[in-house]
Amino acid sequence: MGKFIVIGERIHCISPAIRTAMAARDPAPILQRAKEQIDAGAAYLDVNIGPAEKDGEELMKWAVTLLQEHCDNIPLSLDTANKKAIEAGISVYNRSRGKPLINSADAGDRISNIDLAAANDAIIISLCSKHGVPKDNEERMAFCQEMLERGLSLGMEAEDMWFDPLCLVIKGMQEKQAEMLAFIRQLKDMGFNSVCGLSNASNMMPKNIRPIMDSVLIAMCIACGLSSAIVNPCSPRMMETIKSTDIIMNQTLYADSYLDL
Amino acid sequence: MGKFIVIGERIHCISPAIRTAMAARDPAPILQRAKEQIDAGAAYLDVNIGPAEKDGEELMKWAVTLLQEHCDNIPLSLDTANKKAIEAGISVYNRSRGKPLINSADAGDRISNIDLAAANDAIIISLCSKHGVPKDNEERMAFCQEMLERGLSLGMEAEDMWFDPLCLVIKGMQEKQAEMLAFIRQLKDMGFNSVCGLSNASNMMPKNIRPIMDSVLIAMCIACGLSSAIVNPCSPRMMETIKSTDIIMNQTLYADSYLDL
Repeated sequence: MGKFIVIGERIHCISPAIRTAMAARDPAPILQRAKEQIDAGAAYLDVNIGPAEKDGEELMKWAVTLLQEHCDNIPLSLDTANKKAIEAGISVYNRSRGKPLINSADAGDRISNIDLAAANDAIIISLCSKHGVPKDNEERMAFCQEMLERGLSLGMEAEDMWFDPLCLVIKGMQEKQAEMLAFIRQLKDMGFNSVCGLSNASNMMPKNIRPIMDSVLIAMCIACGLSSAIVNPCSPRMMETIKSTDIIMNQTLYADSYLDL
Repeated sequence: MGKFIVIGERIHCISPAIRTAMAARDPAPILQRAKEQIDAGAAYLDVNIGPAEKDGEELMKWAVTLLQEHCDNIPLSLDTANKKAIEAGISVYNRSRGKPLINSADAGDRISNIDLAAANDAIIISLCSKHGVPKDNEERMAFCQEMLERGLSLGMEAEDMWFDPLCLVIKGMQEKQAEMLAFIRQLKDMGFNSVCGLSNASNMMPKNIRPIMDSVLIAMCIACGLSSAIVNPCSPRMMETIKSTDIIMNQTLYADSYLDL
């Protein structure tokens, strides 16, 4: 155990402000979002540059250097389908506060991202899926095993493989949520680290409901043993919840001011 | 499984308004609190008349009749140390919407409340403690077994024994919370119903923090398999959380309006 690891999701090229800043190599908007997330409690920042087929290598290098130089070498999750961009990012990455995360591999077309992680001593986010939605937890576990074997055979430590149960949208796959919680418990019982792209669950719900649903789901996931998640740390309800789970799980010493720390 | 069962805690003689109303047999304040709790989503109402050594029998009869006549025979949890008052309450209790709950037995001095439940075909809230705080989960389970054997030997169904892991105050017993969650999971794995007096956990915390901590803890308890709790259903954050867990556990069909239902 340890404190729950929050990976901030807000440096993402899907945001117009970030996309524009990335294209123009404009530091200010990116550093502002970095600071907001770190202040709110993010331990890692996800840096999603999209497919970035044209200038991905140079862009990722720029972003990694920018963020680490200005944010005390904050550890990063490198998020793109462009493998060369990931390698380029890692080539300038400072490991003083933690290995880089690669976001992400699966048991299908993206399995070779495990090779990339192994070759670069990185952590790999390993989605327990192959072609779309896993049928059940048996299938999830089979995919987990496939990825684990691949990583171990390449010399990785199991603790550097963070398994993602694949969080499914509640609207449409409501009956799949309890199964996902049970799978997180399986991962925990087997001693694996886990991670989850949580906000997917509340997709298509009304705006006022999403922070409520997300925060309840994260508390339930943590009770089942989830060790990290890619979330929006700037959602107050989300971070109040995560900080409270750290108190309940005895990972932070209680103080009346714990929500402000 | 089934929807999480909310037992409303707000008809309690510790509240000056309720104490006065009970003493004067004044229906209005009691019925108002009943209505507020039922509207907010309580499935049961706890009726705590205190020790009530003098007029407990007559008071409990009055309260049970009043509440059930005006609230569509809402099921009740009869909460007092006065056994004769519990029996008196049950003698006028209408079972059309569920058996009465007796609050509560433990494995120590109060174990004979199990006999009372068995003799009256009631559900018994069974605290897994004997003399104060249980040392660990092994001790909790030993107490659980003692109570279970007593109940079964008297002809009770196991499903009518709702085991309470004994929720401990976080300030002072922070390291005991994860253990309690693990115990709830044990109860769930063994197929038992469970119940919890939740608000105890946040005792002595600042007023603005308690609803946050309580709601996070209930989500974690439900993820571990808790089936009911004695809580304040008039806390919006508490009920938002419980309703969201019912969605996640697929016990309520999702609708964008689920928080208002």
